[in-house]
Amino acid sequence: MSKLYVVGIGPGEYELMTIKAARVLEQCDVIIGYTVYVDLVKEHFPGKEFMTTPMRQETARCKMAFDEASKGKDVAMICSGDAGVYGMSGLIYELSPEYEDVEIEVVNGVTAAIGGGAVLGAPLMHDFAVISLSDLLTPMDKIKNRLQKAGEGDFCICLYNPSSKKRGDYLEKACDILLQSKSPETVCGIVQNIGREGQNMELMTLKELRDTKVDMFTTVFIGNEQTKIIRGKMVTPRGYNTKQ
Amino acid sequence: MSKLYVVGIGPGEYELMTIKAARVLEQCDVIIGYTVYVDLVKEHFPGKEFMTTPMRQETARCKMAFDEASKGKDVAMICSGDAGVYGMSGLIYELSPEYEDVEIEVVNGVTAAIGGGAVLGAPLMHDFAVISLSDLLTPMDKIKNRLQKAGEGDFCICLYNPSSKKRGDYLEKACDILLQSKSPETVCGIVQNIGREGQNMELMTLKELRDTKVDMFTTVFIGNEQTKIIRGKMVTPRGYNTKQ
Repeated sequence: MSKLYVVGIGPGEYELMTIKAARVLEQCDVIIGYTVYVDLVKEHFPGKEFMTTPMRQETARCKMAFDEASKGKDVAMICSGDAGVYGMSGLIYELSPEYEDVEIEVVNGVTAAIGGGAVLGAPLMHDFAVISLSDLLTPMDKIKNRLQKAGEGDFCICLYNPSSKKRGDYLEKACDILLQSKSPETVCGIVQNIGREGQNMELMTLKELRDTKVDMFTTVFIGNEQTKIIRGKMVTPRGYNTKQ
Repeated sequence: MSKLYVVGIGPGEYELMTIKAARVLEQCDVIIGYTVYVDLVKEHFPGKEFMTTPMRQETARCKMAFDEASKGKDVAMICSGDAGVYGMSGLIYELSPEYEDVEIEVVNGVTAAIGGGAVLGAPLMHDFAVISLSDLLTPMDKIKNRLQKAGEGDFCICLYNPSSKKRGDYLEKACDILLQSKSPETVCGIVQNIGREGQNMELMTLKELRDTKVDMFTTVFIGNEQTKIIRGKMVTPRGYNTKQ
């Protein structure tokens, strides 16, 4: 039985990959992915066969991976972050009934919430919600409702895909919803290019975040009512009591 | 300046550690952690100095780490999963103003939501909330409110610490709250001992989960309204539209 690995390569930095992800990429025959992600790993796995498809060709990319695996090759489909968080493992499973001879294994990676969290300090130390602001595959009403509920639950929140060329004002709109339940002084942070060249972090209040322009390589963190800044880092306490 | 690394070692399996975590543990002078976690890594880092404290001695453990670092040693404080998700990086930062000479760096690991997700399939493919059912440091009303809001937002939900000896009925209570907004047929999954000996997964409905007894080494996953079972795996589709 041939094997299709769905591999999260983490934020981008080679050392933030799991040992297993590196071993699987070392051992497989073909590495398939979105052009940008293939470029991130290429230098570390010389001599491999690489195949790419452009962005938004996800279904074609997954079918390509199954087709290569069906030829008897061991195939690694790579995603940034973790394969299971807005990655490709879901679509691979959705398509899998057509390819019963291909065995699937998901190999973990560090998703942006975790990777960016370490850059900022400890923002997701307590209960948190992860929400993507991309409405490409999700109705905007669904996204707005989730923002509202996450705010009302005083969750720490991590926003993926906070912006794109067509969605320049989505972060502003999201903050307006959160400001209905969260204080304008809530501690927030943004991280650009996590684990890649140009990594940069910035701390601000929710009120300031509302008027901040971010790009599609930015991950946004919004604290809960206890989140504070300690030694220049965004820190959410472990608990609501002070007892140890 | 001496250095204190807060290192997430992942679920337990050596290969699920990040390359960076393994390098830091290899290079540091002292490895400090809860006894169970030290036992998980000990064999892979022979010759290191190990120090442990029992469970619930977190503050003492962190102070021990700072004290060792203050002596000029490079110290690694280890946590299971990721250091920033119910781990030790928050408390380390909270205590850090007393130890200005110690530089802190958080090193990522695979948290149970991510690790368990790969075992189950792709349950957290879309927006999700992570909630701990432990009321040791968090008022129960806060936890109940978060469960309610996460249910109303149709989030996929991952529950940490779903049970302990003193909290035998907490999962049942949590499910009762979620059943107010989620269908009793919602696809759920549990994973025991992620990445450790005895790893086991089980799929069930939310109604069945309510009457299931789990232990403290179990992580619980509750789907959104679109989550389904495909080839024996728990799969949440990437989007709500079918367009590609």
